[in-house]
Amino acid sequence: MNMLQHNPAAIAEAASYAASHGLVMARSKDVTTGTQIVHAPLTFSPTPFHAPSYRHAIRITPALNTLVNRIANDHAYLRHTLAQTAQADPFTARLLAMLDHVPPVNRGVQLSIVRYDYFMHASAHDAYELRMVEMNCIAASYICLGTKMSAMHRFMATHPATRLHLQLDKLPANDAMHAIPKGLAAAHHAFVRTQLAGQSNNVVLVMIVQAGDTNSYDQDLLRNTLWEKHQLNMIRLSLSDIHAYASLQSDSTLLLDVPNYPQPLIASVVYFRAAYTPHDYPTDHHWQARTLIEKSNTVKCPSVAMQLVGTKRIQQVLDEPGRLERFLPTEDAHQVRATFARQYAFTSDETSETLVKKAIANPQDYVLKPQREGGGNNLYSQQLKNALSTMSPQQRSAFVLMDRIRPPQFTNVIIRDGVAKLDEVVSELGVFGVYVSVDGREQDNYDAGILLRSKPAATDDGGVSAGVALLDSPLLFD
Amino acid sequence: MNMLQHNPAAIAEAASYAASHGLVMARSKDVTTGTQIVHAPLTFSPTPFHAPSYRHAIRITPALNTLVNRIANDHAYLRHTLAQTAQADPFTARLLAMLDHVPPVNRGVQLSIVRYDYFMHASAHDAYELRMVEMNCIAASYICLGTKMSAMHRFMATHPATRLHLQLDKLPANDAMHAIPKGLAAAHHAFVRTQLAGQSNNVVLVMIVQAGDTNSYDQDLLRNTLWEKHQLNMIRLSLSDIHAYASLQSDSTLLLDVPNYPQPLIASVVYFRAAYTPHDYPTDHHWQARTLIEKSNTVKCPSVAMQLVGTKRIQQVLDEPGRLERFLPTEDAHQVRATFARQYAFTSDETSETLVKKAIANPQDYVLKPQREGGGNNLYSQQLKNALSTMSPQQRSAFVLMDRIRPPQFTNVIIRDGVAKLDEVVSELGVFGVYVSVDGREQDNYDAGILLRSKPAATDDGGVSAGVALLDSPLLFD
Repeated sequence: MNMLQHNPAAIAEAASYAASHGLVMARSKDVTTGTQIVHAPLTFSPTPFHAPSYRHAIRITPALNTLVNRIANDHAYLRHTLAQTAQADPFTARLLAMLDHVPPVNRGVQLSIVRYDYFMHASAHDAYELRMVEMNCIAASYICLGTKMSAMHRFMATHPATRLHLQLDKLPANDAMHAIPKGLAAAHHAFVRTQLAGQSNNVVLVMIVQAGDTNSYDQDLLRNTLWEKHQLNMIRLSLSDIHAYASLQSDSTLLLDVPNYPQPLIASVVYFRAAYTPHDYPTDHHWQARTLIEKSNTVKCPSVAMQLVGTKRIQQVLDEPGRLERFLPTEDAHQVRATFARQYAFTSDETSETLVKKAIANPQDYVLKPQREGGGNNLYSQQLKNALSTMSPQQRSAFVLMDRIRPPQFTNVIIRDGVAKLDEVVSELGVFGVYVSVDGREQDNYDAGILLRSKPAATDDGGVSAGVALLDSPLLFD
Repeated sequence: MNMLQHNPAAIAEAASYAASHGLVMARSKDVTTGTQIVHAPLTFSPTPFHAPSYRHAIRITPALNTLVNRIANDHAYLRHTLAQTAQADPFTARLLAMLDHVPPVNRGVQLSIVRYDYFMHASAHDAYELRMVEMNCIAASYICLGTKMSAMHRFMATHPATRLHLQLDKLPANDAMHAIPKGLAAAHHAFVRTQLAGQSNNVVLVMIVQAGDTNSYDQDLLRNTLWEKHQLNMIRLSLSDIHAYASLQSDSTLLLDVPNYPQPLIASVVYFRAAYTPHDYPTDHHWQARTLIEKSNTVKCPSVAMQLVGTKRIQQVLDEPGRLERFLPTEDAHQVRATFARQYAFTSDETSETLVKKAIANPQDYVLKPQREGGGNNLYSQQLKNALSTMSPQQRSAFVLMDRIRPPQFTNVIIRDGVAKLDEVVSELGVFGVYVSVDGREQDNYDAGILLRSKPAATDDGGVSAGVALLDSPLLFD
């Protein structure tokens, strides 16, 4: 990998390809759309990923889709499991309370788009195992940029200028950019068929966004694809817009009176790319908007119940004996459990105190994770030690402790803002899953492409938008 | 067209689509590749264009390809016709002198990629006629961005958010981005077959560029397409690079010893996206580089002879009786001549003086055009009057006078740097033509997509890169 010294032209090739193929972001928040664009941070080469682990992750995706959808339709289970978390975390509490106002479970059209995130774990006997780190049940992003990243690495794999000389069959195809709109379209059509008796005039899909997101191009590419491939119009609205323009009809349809449309619109699907953090609900109006959506018959992607499935607490207790088996056939449960890192809740006082002592003594072996979504808040090493040394049992219960995964490191060239740098990276594989059901009956259930993100091994946490992780794609090895 | 007031979201849709679909440029020269990107200036809606004129322009493209290739292979004709121009214009003189050192005509592989530019002319009886303004025989740009612009307008044509409600069959398909690489690939393969006995290892195509061009993404997209569709490597080099790395072998092959390639490379095709203006030849090294290319057996696109065909003088005299018929069958000559605006050379003194008086009296009816390529230097109205009033006959002979074309104006929304503005625009249609011959025998001859550029009616001249014109596509009307 002496390319940096000897082949700077190849770096420009990569940055140029990215810039002209939609692998782009806004340089900062709140810039005018179409200006201040920069290529997304990315790796020059695809990073090695263990092929059997990759295939395992793809294979279990339908089972995971089934799992998260069954949990989301088991409100009693959600309430029971999250009761303690809700006491410590007002955000979870407020989402949980919303369950009292939603339509009955297993009714109407349901759609889930979940990204299951994994590391390779270098196990004791020097082999690799797959380790799930998170189920992203709301607003999983980089769907289109992930597909474009895979295409870019396939473009570069054999191009003489890159000198990578890679075998194309080691770079898996990645069609998330089309597979996910296909799911959105399927949900839309099921909604029109079952709720509107086939009448599709002025029916739109809605994407809930944060204003001024640097990642709006990834979002818009998804909306563009819905139009290009399915002739479906998905409009961008914020929760504030929903509060201003939306109303609930007596038949539970969500009606939108959007200024730039002459006719009121009916929302078939409301797809969230925001609303996963307390910051997205700065006022009661935002909570009212979310509640309005939840009460309606629109297809929520996700519903508040599905969003709650994504809490760390739900995922942590799945590791306990019998939990997975409550929702999945034994063999599926076995395949899924094989990817779990051991997790530990701070529950009864004696167990917790033992756990805390062990973690403080060996902080490098653990991760302390907050119960809610969003990233960037995990605690490692000294920070973990400090936190556990000072937290009250009450404060601790908003966190879970997990065995720290030891992903292998690989050398790659990372390109950020046009500048290349050699670095050691670790990679996180996301596998998208799409699930559509009508009145509780499964209609579609498939894996829907991937996202590989890598980050310098020296950093502990943070996503692509946070300026830490890089878009990447896997180079499979056996 | 009240969209600006009522539908600002549609402007953001357009700018976002452009940004994430490669309709991009560098904000300024010499920025790091992949950074400081901005959407290309463009029109929100396709601009109306007279369908019969459009079809006429497409139809005559093969005849024009034949014409320019026959002229380029008639060096005596070039020398004779340009003798006077060369006296006034040192650049033309130097190019013309290079003809003494080039291989014999009608030998080896020849490739031309020419863009024929036209206006609609609102004729006296309120009908529209096609008027050719220029044959761009070197470095015609916006090949890929033109294709993407057509695709964007087709995307927006029926999208509810735009409220354009256009009929898709009025927006012609535009495949320049693939049709032109197809021609480059055909020339490459013909070269490998005829000059290298089929040996294609380490054979590359070369694109001659200016360093730091704001339009490098359009260039790179073409190179990317050559790799994606034809598995051919086209490398970017400047004339300085050629001077540093290129040498002529005894068998006339052009050998390139480029630092980032371990083996010397053979140039099959040298495709110019620069070298059309004296500014591209700041030193003798640059002229030596160009001469080296011309002497070699590489496929020059264009050859210096073809570049000279693009001079205003050559195009101006084609209007004289019998000239077109020298190169084309009568019917083709008739179809081509129908697109000519009357042009007038400053030749014998009496004719010139009459012409000058007439133009000074009615400056609004004429354009004064310099003999060489590049744009931005045409003189209109008061400037034309001033120039003709003060120039010596010698100075005048570097220019031609042309009937000013009166293109119709249409209202459109123009988007520049994310900001929309309602304006009156006039449009210039470019039709790309590709021609490949082997030892003087035609192998390929076809129209290869289009480029529509529009500019505010109030401006006199200037291209997209100069910040004046906007990318556009035609909305055909009968």
